[in-house]
Amino acid sequence: MNPNFNFDILAVDANSRARRGAFHTPHGIVQTPAFMPIGTVGSVKGIEISQLEATGSQMILGNTYHLSLRPGEDVVAKLGGLHQFCGWNGPILTDSGGFQIFSLAKLLKIKEEGAYFRSHIDGRALTLTPERSVEIQEALGSDVAMVLDHVVGLPNPDKVIRDAFERTIRWAKRCRDAHTREDQAQFGIVQGGLSREMRVESAQKLAEIGFEGYAIGGLSVGEPPEDMYRTIEFTEPAMPTDRPRYLMGVGTPRDLIECIHRGVDLFDCVMPTRNGRNAFAFTDNGPMRMRNAQYIEDPRPIDETCPCPACKRSRAYIRHLFAADEMLGPILLSIHNITYYQRLVSRARDAIVNGTWKEFRKERLAGWGFEPFNS
Amino acid sequence: MNPNFNFDILAVDANSRARRGAFHTPHGIVQTPAFMPIGTVGSVKGIEISQLEATGSQMILGNTYHLSLRPGEDVVAKLGGLHQFCGWNGPILTDSGGFQIFSLAKLLKIKEEGAYFRSHIDGRALTLTPERSVEIQEALGSDVAMVLDHVVGLPNPDKVIRDAFERTIRWAKRCRDAHTREDQAQFGIVQGGLSREMRVESAQKLAEIGFEGYAIGGLSVGEPPEDMYRTIEFTEPAMPTDRPRYLMGVGTPRDLIECIHRGVDLFDCVMPTRNGRNAFAFTDNGPMRMRNAQYIEDPRPIDETCPCPACKRSRAYIRHLFAADEMLGPILLSIHNITYYQRLVSRARDAIVNGTWKEFRKERLAGWGFEPFNS
Repeated sequence: MNPNFNFDILAVDANSRARRGAFHTPHGIVQTPAFMPIGTVGSVKGIEISQLEATGSQMILGNTYHLSLRPGEDVVAKLGGLHQFCGWNGPILTDSGGFQIFSLAKLLKIKEEGAYFRSHIDGRALTLTPERSVEIQEALGSDVAMVLDHVVGLPNPDKVIRDAFERTIRWAKRCRDAHTREDQAQFGIVQGGLSREMRVESAQKLAEIGFEGYAIGGLSVGEPPEDMYRTIEFTEPAMPTDRPRYLMGVGTPRDLIECIHRGVDLFDCVMPTRNGRNAFAFTDNGPMRMRNAQYIEDPRPIDETCPCPACKRSRAYIRHLFAADEMLGPILLSIHNITYYQRLVSRARDAIVNGTWKEFRKERLAGWGFEPFNS
Repeated sequence: MNPNFNFDILAVDANSRARRGAFHTPHGIVQTPAFMPIGTVGSVKGIEISQLEATGSQMILGNTYHLSLRPGEDVVAKLGGLHQFCGWNGPILTDSGGFQIFSLAKLLKIKEEGAYFRSHIDGRALTLTPERSVEIQEALGSDVAMVLDHVVGLPNPDKVIRDAFERTIRWAKRCRDAHTREDQAQFGIVQGGLSREMRVESAQKLAEIGFEGYAIGGLSVGEPPEDMYRTIEFTEPAMPTDRPRYLMGVGTPRDLIECIHRGVDLFDCVMPTRNGRNAFAFTDNGPMRMRNAQYIEDPRPIDETCPCPACKRSRAYIRHLFAADEMLGPILLSIHNITYYQRLVSRARDAIVNGTWKEFRKERLAGWGFEPFNS
């Protein structure tokens, strides 16, 4: 295994699969469990790099599909790679483009060779093969590249899900063969819908190929969260223990707690930024909708314990910014929500180390109105 | 004169009217010449307070008309005033609302009592009298309040301009009589179009009433810049020497240099932020249009000497942000442009003190392609 990407397990919880780790990369160490904000095309929407650093974020995610269209990975490479281009000096993970083709582009056909689709920007016909996905991500120069996966929605017939996860394994092998950069890790992606049999088979076959980390893909695509928790519960034991486990595109604060409980180390999601732009603030007591009239004269901050710039202002001010359609509203709530997610995983890390995970999980879930989910 | 608002003249240029001053306010000292960014409804669009502080801005402007509609000055007052509300702890100047009624609202009629108009947001019928403008600004708690003026465009018949400036003087007297806050300065506004006679008469009559500062209004409303420079040249000698002079709503970098040359101490303008949102960057060598294809692979910063966060990135990155319609593009260029304006007035202050104003003015104007204008 590539020594640039050691993963140290620093503590494990005695009564769950929760664990506290340190993932080494050429751009620094990521303390896990960790949450990655989304820097779609080289910026976390509306947030300047120094503001992003202040949220406690350690690693960010860039979208291969978006960056290959605009400005193009060749341009990014000429300008010194994605870190230099966007100014983020910490670790960066790039996805493979598979999920965006599934969700954004006009998909024409998945063949064994690759995905045939049309650009969501200008309708251009494009092809993304496993080799091309590796090539783009190596040009971008991310610390972690993802293999190209065949993503399908849920529910779907078993045959469709089996076809997709088996193709994902063949594509993963092709990605591994095409991979050349020693300073870039590559993560395989476990697929298989909600099926224990397929998930376990997928995880085992990826482990045979051998990657620096393993992701769980194809979840949070329409199924109830409890189905996702169950799926992670039976998938995780089939994944290598000594490598980081990354749950792609997840999720709510509850999802983070329930999935850390089930052994996940890494998360990414648009939720803190997208919901922030829509005036939705995350707190320990559940969400606040900051357009609501109840905040018009509320002098309190969203969260008195939060160190973010939004929480230096009153709820009334934040509410006013949204009412007056001022850009600063979405910006401040995006920063608040990322800060909230980072504080949440930071507290989770502490709880795992301190042996208080069980209490922490219960208390956090109760704050949001949930019981611990025990499958 | 109110001792809370002393104005110290620290240096005067030997060969022009340019001067270097220090304007004292309850929220700090403003080194002049100074430029105020516009915080329309309590935020400088897209810019967080700590970012704004880092631009070198000393004092900002809030719009009375906008703030009285949203969130309402009573709400701002309940929340501790405009400083507390928006988090800017430096000096704040509020305009009177006159210019917004002139430019934005559906103006119904100017009567001697006040302005009758409809809100640009919901069409509500509203009245703004001099007394009401004072009341709103006292509720907002700005450091400097402006008297309500009757603004007219240019060109306009002399009769219209005379009528407006004479009403402005009567309104100024009513504002002075209505003014109660000791911790708030009040500035009169000289009107009178491009007429020497009317400008001088307006300035003298305002000086007789007596204000903590004097503004020049009704310029940059359609006339060529050279007409504005000439007008300031014959207006300024009629204005009190020992009080700050504020040129409202101006202007381009050239305007700042030419008007500092003619004795102006304070400026405000939407140009750095509005143009920044439209991908337009100010530099010592003239404007750069950052959407242009020439920057697609340009690794250099917009300005190597600029300390702002935009200039930590490449032109290629800024260009990409605009091409991809990312919020961060407008944000970064707004910050760059405000920083540019602040560095410009900072260099002007130094040049006045160091006796190099003549050379500085010539060199700066040449950088933008202009000769010094000598009327």
